[in-house]
Amino acid sequence: MELGDAARPGPGRAVRTLPPRLLLLPLLPLLLGRGLRAAAAASSSGAAAEDSSAMEELATEKEAEESHRQDSVSLLTFILLLTLTILTIWLFKHRRVRFLHETGLAMIYGLIVGVILRYGTPATSGRDKSLSCTQEDRAFSTLLVNVSGKFFEYTLKGEISPGKINNVEQNDMLRKVTFDPEVFFNILLPPIIFHAGYSLKKRHFFRNLGSILAYAFLGTAVSCFIIGNLMYGVVKLMKIVGQLSDKFYYTDCLFFGAIISATDPVTVLAIFNELHADVDLYALLFGESVLNDAVAIVLSSSIVAYQPAGLNTHAFDAAAFFKSVGIFLGIFSGSFTMGAVTGVVTALVTKFTKLHCFPLLETALFFLMSWSTFLLAEACGFTGVVAVLFCGITQAHYTYNNLSVESRSRTKQLFEVLHFLAENFIFSYMGLALFTFQKHVFSPIFIIGAFVAIFLGRAAHIYPLSFFLNLGRRHKIGWNFQHMMMFSGLRGAMAFALAIRDTASYARQMMFTTTLLIVFFTVWVIGGGTTPMLSWLNIRVGIEEPSEEDQNERCWQYFRVGVDPDQDPPPNNDSFQVLQGDGPDSARGNRTKQESAWIFRLWYSFDHNYLKPILTHSGPPLTTTLPTWCGLLARCLTSPQVYDNQEPLREEDSDFILTEGDLTLTYGDSTVTANGSSGSHTASTSLEGGRRTKSSSEEVLERDLGMGDQKVSSWGTRLVFPLEDNNS
Amino acid sequence: MELGDAARPGPGRAVRTLPPRLLLLPLLPLLLGRGLRAAAAASSSGAAAEDSSAMEELATEKEAEESHRQDSVSLLTFILLLTLTILTIWLFKHRRVRFLHETGLAMIYGLIVGVILRYGTPATSGRDKSLSCTQEDRAFSTLLVNVSGKFFEYTLKGEISPGKINNVEQNDMLRKVTFDPEVFFNILLPPIIFHAGYSLKKRHFFRNLGSILAYAFLGTAVSCFIIGNLMYGVVKLMKIVGQLSDKFYYTDCLFFGAIISATDPVTVLAIFNELHADVDLYALLFGESVLNDAVAIVLSSSIVAYQPAGLNTHAFDAAAFFKSVGIFLGIFSGSFTMGAVTGVVTALVTKFTKLHCFPLLETALFFLMSWSTFLLAEACGFTGVVAVLFCGITQAHYTYNNLSVESRSRTKQLFEVLHFLAENFIFSYMGLALFTFQKHVFSPIFIIGAFVAIFLGRAAHIYPLSFFLNLGRRHKIGWNFQHMMMFSGLRGAMAFALAIRDTASYARQMMFTTTLLIVFFTVWVIGGGTTPMLSWLNIRVGIEEPSEEDQNERCWQYFRVGVDPDQDPPPNNDSFQVLQGDGPDSARGNRTKQESAWIFRLWYSFDHNYLKPILTHSGPPLTTTLPTWCGLLARCLTSPQVYDNQEPLREEDSDFILTEGDLTLTYGDSTVTANGSSGSHTASTSLEGGRRTKSSSEEVLERDLGMGDQKVSSWGTRLVFPLEDNNS
Repeated sequence: MELGDAARPGPGRAVRTLPPRLLLLPLLPLLLGRGLRAAAAASSSGAAAEDSSAMEELATEKEAEESHRQDSVSLLTFILLLTLTILTIWLFKHRRVRFLHETGLAMIYGLIVGVILRYGTPATSGRDKSLSCTQEDRAFSTLLVNVSGKFFEYTLKGEISPGKINNVEQNDMLRKVTFDPEVFFNILLPPIIFHAGYSLKKRHFFRNLGSILAYAFLGTAVSCFIIGNLMYGVVKLMKIVGQLSDKFYYTDCLFFGAIISATDPVTVLAIFNELHADVDLYALLFGESVLNDAVAIVLSSSIVAYQPAGLNTHAFDAAAFFKSVGIFLGIFSGSFTMGAVTGVVTALVTKFTKLHCFPLLETALFFLMSWSTFLLAEACGFTGVVAVLFCGITQAHYTYNNLSVESRSRTKQLFEVLHFLAENFIFSYMGLALFTFQKHVFSPIFIIGAFVAIFLGRAAHIYPLSFFLNLGRRHKIGWNFQHMMMFSGLRGAMAFALAIRDTASYARQMMFTTTLLIVFFTVWVIGGGTTPMLSWLNIRVGIEEPSEEDQNERCWQYFRVGVDPDQDPPPNNDSFQVLQGDGPDSARGNRTKQESAWIFRLWYSFDHNYLKPILTHSGPPLTTTLPTWCGLLARCLTSPQVYDNQEPLREEDSDFILTEGDLTLTYGDSTVTANGSSGSHTASTSLEGGRRTKSSSEEVLERDLGMGDQKVSSWGTRLVFPLEDNNS
Repeated sequence: MELGDAARPGPGRAVRTLPPRLLLLPLLPLLLGRGLRAAAAASSSGAAAEDSSAMEELATEKEAEESHRQDSVSLLTFILLLTLTILTIWLFKHRRVRFLHETGLAMIYGLIVGVILRYGTPATSGRDKSLSCTQEDRAFSTLLVNVSGKFFEYTLKGEISPGKINNVEQNDMLRKVTFDPEVFFNILLPPIIFHAGYSLKKRHFFRNLGSILAYAFLGTAVSCFIIGNLMYGVVKLMKIVGQLSDKFYYTDCLFFGAIISATDPVTVLAIFNELHADVDLYALLFGESVLNDAVAIVLSSSIVAYQPAGLNTHAFDAAAFFKSVGIFLGIFSGSFTMGAVTGVVTALVTKFTKLHCFPLLETALFFLMSWSTFLLAEACGFTGVVAVLFCGITQAHYTYNNLSVESRSRTKQLFEVLHFLAENFIFSYMGLALFTFQKHVFSPIFIIGAFVAIFLGRAAHIYPLSFFLNLGRRHKIGWNFQHMMMFSGLRGAMAFALAIRDTASYARQMMFTTTLLIVFFTVWVIGGGTTPMLSWLNIRVGIEEPSEEDQNERCWQYFRVGVDPDQDPPPNNDSFQVLQGDGPDSARGNRTKQESAWIFRLWYSFDHNYLKPILTHSGPPLTTTLPTWCGLLARCLTSPQVYDNQEPLREEDSDFILTEGDLTLTYGDSTVTANGSSGSHTASTSLEGGRRTKSSSEEVLERDLGMGDQKVSSWGTRLVFPLEDNNS
């Protein structure tokens, strides 16, 4: 199958530019077109004396007006597509149809419109006005052209491959509906990613933080490497059978591995949410997908930055490799810092002003500060999208607590709407792009290879990592959870945005086409198969998260059912609800466990004792946690509200924060966690034992007893245990 | 005073293009820059074998990256400005400072940053990369340039006046912070205008609709014409004293009159809101300013479109004049229709689906439909901003009632935030533009003339029109109200956006500079003087609007204090609270009154009996209002909820809608209003008399008695009367 009449460039060197048509972002001419029109209109009223030039201006004006009109129509097309999607989603939700998610739907509508645009509109040549003018040895970004005495300014759009110049029969409408790929990165992705970060404020996320980080960082790297190598094999094979008409380097394969490793289980998670599937599995999947987006972005830029010195390109070069690793670490930590710093600044501002009396101002400030993260990171050469993610997490963790009740809902709703619109826009654009994108390279071998590779890559990512994590986790990630995670490896907006960002070379075009097909397949097939899969894997559904009121007033008591305290030492960070776990493993790997416990506990304690009190109105008073010599500072920084409400947390997100029983401990000795990890965990156990939650395991128990249709066979190995034991 | 080193073009013909630098909208290169960078990066990894070209690519890449960075920095500047503004506003509100409104503040900060950017940054030449290339007789919109074998695509930005080519010492930062003027029209104004329309859902607005329409349409036209003629005199004077260096036509003067007639009393209204000043005055001012924005836009495009045939330009041409009038009517009614139709479609969709179960979907749909109005109008060649205004009004009037409670607050808050950000952005940009805009033409005579002209224009608009309206109004617009309206003639975002839209010719540049100064002066001086003026004019403050609960349960009783029913016949649409009215006038002008009463009452009855029931869940069942032969249709269209809640309106906006007493009337005879207007108003009075509101006049009475500090001297002429008498 080969779509795209002008798809293949000449057999010469790789085309090295952005596709010229891609840059014609509808929004931009919408602005520019009017500008020209106004100018032309002004001129015709201002200096209409010169008749010939007036006619000429009129022509330009008409052209600009026409262009502006077309831009409006093309944006309108997308808006109508989204409207249609919304209405159909409503119908589906109304009738409880679960086999097709809104994103899948948006793609289908996009496809239909794409087909109509491609085959239903006449192919008018859009480039009738171009002409050549030979010039010096370099392309300039601005060009002044002297047209019979008048000077016109032109700006560079990009290079065009020589083979294409006479081969442009794209019609205007197709051009108009083709967006600048950077729109995805700079306009559509940030709200999606920010929203993801902002809604990560979940107890279960932090409870599984260690595993999530492992899946996101190690997992994505493993997946990228495996997919890259497998694809290199595929490419070699293609060369042998003569299916490859242009260069395809090893770095290209790795790049493909990076972009396709960004999972986006939005469909699966929507169903999880609806069915109230297991919250820990939800947290694992959601956390992994959010973070691995960031990893994939940075990874792909690092791979692009891998440039061995000299003419020996595409061979292994240790220096270049380490430079790439350095770039990865630099960009990642830089973006992380930017995001965290802006979040912290926002938290401080909202804490120390009484802005919460004016929710509108507060919301506007919140929005502006979050946006400034993106710009700040971009201005400093880091990755804005990654910065926005961490900014969102920080905002949720600190700033959210300082906001007024109205602003909390305002900010949540604002970003929810933006996220919804952006996400559905991207997916409907994907559908459209399958037919309107002009340079598809459909290579069956590559596509089949890619499907196999992502399957193997996902398997090599989930199963071994889960095995190692289970060594460290007391509460194992069961086989059914692993299978579900394996199954949920959908690819979505991020993979698409990374792939479309650069479709200049043949290799990249092939990757883009393949990515598009992978996204389609996974969203439709996996999205539709989630509900059957859940029941097939015996993953319980219908377990509602405790509501926020419940969380606030949950009682910190300790319940143990059938667990020997000696066998399962509580101070363990990766507590996880084992549903069909393999019990015997749980005694192993004490050392790994404790190490992770140490580092996380240290952070938790620092966060609770210092950061929360400084940045929010909650936590213990700083006067008790800081050394006495900085008493004045402590008094200045501590919110007066802290003294008022001595119950530890008035906010809703008792993610992983210490409670009263522990406060007395940390007041006396702020390094308890470090000590606790060095071996004396029995001591800390006895201290922490007093403030255990009723825990969702108990709720699970109650609920399962009530709902007789759940399988009872798995009960034999289920360990019920304290779920809040990582809160120290 | 003459800012802008490259300000004056050569003495030749009027420069007929957009200023090239103006088109460099920060947002756009933000997108494009990355694109080029990605392309360059791709090429360097993909085809680095050619060494020389690789170096060249690297240079391009660096350049693009640098440009992208600068764009981010410039946007960041604006965001920090806004953040600073927000924090200072908070401080002001916190300390109850009222002499400076947030918009004035935004301008001051903008000014400061503008000064820093202009005098604090080194003047680097931004155009080192340009080169000339002589060409055929016409400027093409796309250019292909052959650079040593490679082809690059360029797009037209605009024309440059020949005098400027060697005169570009603008520094990069100044260029970067200069936005494409169309951004204001296509991105920033729509949310502001939509919000204005969406928040017009005020009983008091519809109560004063006749006067508001008169002020907005007639008033703006009068003001435009008077200012235009006065300015033409000023221009003639300038020619005589030799202060005018380029052409300045009569149409230019009229254009100036149109753009400067758009009032924007945002500052005054903010203070009104805070002090709870008179609601009717608020409604008059707000309604007038909202509608006259629309009138000014369409008026200015009509004036631009005034092009006499042949060489006889700028003389009066009846054909061209009528064409202009036709264009005005066409654009206005077209935009109105677009807006109303989209609003009605949204209302129907939200009524007939159960979308209100999913507030997110509902809000997204609402947002998309409202945006589509803009695009639809632009695509059809109408004015998007005007369409958006009427869409907002329709949405508030119909759709709002169908939304779920959550969506109501969501949509309100969403547009409130967008409006707030856009407005403050525009005002801070104005401050910035005073120093960073490169082509100011400061002409003291013109500026002084303009100040005088807008003063006279406003006076000629308010006082005579009020006089004529008072002939028709039973409840006069008092002198203090007229003075306040005269005083509140601030110019704001709309005047600025219209002026900056086209700054190509010398005349337009002079207008732009003058507009900027007028906006500065009015916002600062009038904004600061509102509170003193209110007390000086004895306009009562502290009268809170009845809250929404109050409105719902307000009792429909009729109270009359000191008014003879025969002397003041109630069926009168322009009921207005006379505070210091001139009683004797009120008996005159019965005919005008009744005519307006007839048309408005017809509309009200139609709206209540047919539109509200069809489009919303409220109003009387259609089965009772429609003729019997369309009973099936009526049953399909009527919402089942209507039958459930037979109390007439469950929504909060009983703007001007009939109540129970009247329903029985209209059920029986749906043409009662037409009859009522033909003379039998005594009959309808007796019917309507039963359902009068407790009315704010009574509240006024109570309150004034309570607050002894109010002047009692004005009580002699105060007529207290039914306020709901225009609801039929």
